[in-house]
Parts: sequence; C-alpha cells; structure tokens
Amino acid sequence: MTHFADRLAEAVRKKGNPLCVGLDPRWESLPRQLRDRHADGTLAGASAAIEAFCLKVLELVAARVPVVKPQSAFFEAFGPPGLAAMQSVIRRARALGLVVILDSKRGDIASTAEAYADAAFAGTPLDGKPIPVWDADALTVNPYLGQDAIDPFLQSARQSGRGLFVLVRTSNPGGGLFQDLDCGGRKVYEQVAAAVASWGRDRRGACGLSDVGAVVGATRSEELASLRRDLPETWFLVPGYGAQGAGARYVAGAFRPDGLGAIVNSSRGITFCFHPDEPGWEQAITAATDRATTELAAVMNG
Amino acid sequence: MTHFADRLAEAVRKKGNPLCVGLDPRWESLPRQLRDRHADGTLAGASAAIEAFCLKVLELVAARVPVVKPQSAFFEAFGPPGLAAMQSVIRRARALGLVVILDSKRGDIASTAEAYADAAFAGTPLDGKPIPVWDADALTVNPYLGQDAIDPFLQSARQSGRGLFVLVRTSNPGGGLFQDLDCGGRKVYEQVAAAVASWGRDRRGACGLSDVGAVVGATRSEELASLRRDLPETWFLVPGYGAQGAGARYVAGAFRPDGLGAIVNSSRGITFCFHPDEPGWEQAITAATDRATTELAAVMNG
Repeated sequence: MTHFADRLAEAVRKKGNPLCVGLDPRWESLPRQLRDRHADGTLAGASAAIEAFCLKVLELVAARVPVVKPQSAFFEAFGPPGLAAMQSVIRRARALGLVVILDSKRGDIASTAEAYADAAFAGTPLDGKPIPVWDADALTVNPYLGQDAIDPFLQSARQSGRGLFVLVRTSNPGGGLFQDLDCGGRKVYEQVAAAVASWGRDRRGACGLSDVGAVVGATRSEELASLRRDLPETWFLVPGYGAQGAGARYVAGAFRPDGLGAIVNSSRGITFCFHPDEPGWEQAITAATDRATTELAAVMNG
Repeated sequence: MTHFADRLAEAVRKKGNPLCVGLDPRWESLPRQLRDRHADGTLAGASAAIEAFCLKVLELVAARVPVVKPQSAFFEAFGPPGLAAMQSVIRRARALGLVVILDSKRGDIASTAEAYADAAFAGTPLDGKPIPVWDADALTVNPYLGQDAIDPFLQSARQSGRGLFVLVRTSNPGGGLFQDLDCGGRKVYEQVAAAVASWGRDRRGACGLSDVGAVVGATRSEELASLRRDLPETWFLVPGYGAQGAGARYVAGAFRPDGLGAIVNSSRGITFCFHPDEPGWEQAITAATDRATTELAAVMNG
C-alpha cells in the first residue's frame, strides 16, 4: 500500500503541475444542453445531469491535472441521487488515475467521526466486512472539536493509506473571526497548524511529507509562506485560486524548494468558465485547465 | 409561519420535558431480529434495517418527547440508501409532530454553505422551484469558518422558519484543545458564544428565545450555567447526558427560570439501552425514555 503523501507527490510529478480541479456542480451553471437533456423537475433528473457533467469534466482533465476535489455540499444538495452521483464520480476519477480529495469538512465526537471516516475511506463494516461508501483518497476535516474528534480520522487514514486535510486558515473573507483570534501571541489558526504538524509527525512518506495535510487559503500570501516554513512536512491544499480572487503569484510561497508540498484548487474558474448557453464548453474547460496548469507549473518550479 | 423558537417552546411545554432522542443507528447495535430480517451484505439491506429501527423508535417516543436528532454520520455511513432512510425518518418524525434537529455540523464558505442550507431547509432550487431535500426543523453548524460561512444558514433559517444550533462548547473529552484557548481573557468558545448571541439578536420569537441556538456540552456544568447567564435569549442543545456520562443534575443550570431554554439529548442511552440479542427492546426503549423524561422534567422545573 503506497503512502498517501507519496501517491500525491507521484501524481504531481507525473502531471507536472499542482492543480486540483474542484467539482462543485450547480444546477444553474451547468451547460444548458445537459440541463435540457435531463431536466424533469426532480432531484433524480438533476443528479443525472450533474453526474454526466462531472464525468465529462473528469475525461477532459484526467491527463492534465493530478487531483480533483468533489465538494460534497453540491452533491448533497440533490439528496440521495446526488450522493449516488458523487459515488460514481469518485469511482471514475480514481479509475482515471486521479487523486480524489473529498471536500466534506467533517468533524464530530469520536464515535461519530469514526462513522464518517469509515464512509470516506475503508468502508462501513457490516458484520465485520467493510463495504465501500465514498472511497476517496483524502478527506477535508474541521478541527473545532479537538483531539479525540480527529483521532478516528488519523487512524482510519493510516490504516487505509489515505490522507486528511485539516482546516487551518480558510480563504473566505470572514474566516478570521475565530481563526485569527490571538491566544497569547499565537493566533487560533497557528495553534491548529501546530497541532496538524504534531499529528503528522512519524507519518511521513518517502517524499518527506506526511498524510495529514492542511487547508490554507490562498488569499493571504504571507501567511501561506510563513506556514510553509513552520510546517515543512505538511501538504497544503490551497483554495482561493481563480474565482475566489487569488492569482498564481499568491500561492508561490506554498511550495517547497523541490516543487512539492502544495495542491492548488480551482473550482468555478475551471468548471464554470463558460456561459451556460455557450456552445463549446468542453473546449472552454480544457483551455482554462491548460492556462491554470501552465501558470501553476511555472510558480511551482520557482 | 410560526417562529422556530416558539415551535420548540410549544413542543417542550406540550410534552412537559426537554428530552431530545438522538438517532445514531449503528449496524452492530440494532436488535438482532431487525438485522436478521434485512441483512444481505449490502448497504441497501442495512439501510432498510436502520430505517425500520428508527421508524419504530419514532413511534415509541413520539408521544413522550418533543425533539429527535438524527445524526447524519450514521445514515451517511450506509451511503445513498442510508441517506434516503434519513429522509424518510425525518419526514415521519415531522408528521408525528416531533421537532427534528438534523445533526450534521455543517460549515463551509458562503456559496457552499448556501447549498447545505438549501438542502437542510427550504429545498434546492431547480429552475426557480425549491425541491425539498432533508427538510429538517433545525441544523447543527460548525463556526470555525466565521461570519460569511454562517450568514447563509442564518438567512435560510429565517426565511423558512427553521433554526440553527452553533457548536460552542462540545461534550467530548478533547473538545478543549482549541475551544478552551485563552484569547485575552476570553476563551475561544466564549467568543463563539458571544457571536451566537449577536447573531440571534432581533430574531426572538414570542417566547423570548431566538432561532440561533448553541450546542453546549453537559459534562461541564459550571460552564453551562455561566453560558445560560450570558446568553439569556439562546436555546441550548445539550449533548452528553446519559451515555456520555453526565447526569440530570449537570444540566440543571441550562434552563431559564420558566423551564425553557434547553433541549437535552440522549442517543445511545435511549436507543441502545438493550443488548442486541435481548427480546423486548421496544419496552426497554420506552422505559429508558420514561426514566429520562421524568428525571429531566424534575430538573427543568427547578
């Protein structure tokens, strides 16, 4: 079983760029052609459309990028059939050799966290036999509930060769309300960062990075560079590039000298870079992907 | 449209107790009779068993308690059919007149939070028409992402007459790792509590409580009483009673003088108070419910 950090490093090296394509399927942003084909006023019809859209996106980006990140909220929005679509999308992405980060930002007390971790990774045990549920390579988790809420995720990730990305500093404008509170000279997010580093200790792969990553917003470039120095063994998942306003230069500080250490996400900037009524949305997606990978490859290699 | 806080107050007054029955269906804890009937080694079979179990629990407790709390992790563990079971359980609970708090601890950046809020409350809009997804009365949310991540939940709850419970101080042993950090004389959870109070301002129902509640662990009774004083207009959802170790005396400080202001959750203490092989699990559940409601009614009324 290859270590998650090494699988991620290998994917980044193979594709030559650190782009993560975020899959946030919104009904109103889908190509009109797909909506017209599936629309029947039900969540099942809408789910068929988002599934078809995401599968097409995977086909377009699979040779170009190392990672995709389904945002579970946009599948959950369509109820059980939407989540069945998410399963299908994750399965196809992994079959295409993409690393899949399931962005669910889960967090709960230990016994509940264990149920979430089983679903994300090894499968839910039925009479001793684990049955796969989401079966992703990595999961985003929320640290607010503390140590024993993170432990089941750490244990499950290690046992099944998967990874975690713990929210440290988020990219949204109001993210500082609690994350930036000063606790005796260290901000809350710096305390979380220190915990992430300690959780990852003794869990490094051959690439020198651990399977416990951090979500660090790209809209704050100094913080990103400072966290890179403090957390030399931590993979960063950097949202905020593209539609959320940050350019490639903002993320430059997130990489190690060898070009590894950061995955940079773009969701709407890739998958909704076209007007729904526009023909040729597939070409628009590949063009946007190629622009982003070129820009990020240059930054990654310093 | 009746205000959420008033619907909750009416439910508590009508049943004469503040017990919330947590629905955390675990495969290995289900009555053997139900497992044997549905087990076929698939998530669909297991989902049929947890649905049948939860519907039976609803029937047993509907006349006895005001509130139930499905924990979404334990439905998600069974994948899309598990979440279809959750939909069915929420629908039946509301039809039986129970207030339903969906315990999902959601939290994400604004556009994503909006998708979660639509799913929880008013429904996901398809070409302008909202289609119900989970359709719960209230949702638990995680505050770590800050102001703009909470706003969509606040707006959606207000528009659809629903409520929120924001994590403030959780009941798990490691909950203090970040929640108890000292930020210039106030702990992180106290800062979150102050934000919850401000979010609820101008959103009170006739009962004087707002539709923005707080999750406050019962294992710390002094903190509970102190938060009651600081947040006189906030409904508390108090986990930790029963299986997590807190007795009824610990929650006494959570109530206002009129007996309102707190909902006390018990999950395993009610729904898994029997050995799976034991016959008569229905009677065990009603007996455990009656013990808890009697104990809590005495505490609630001071």
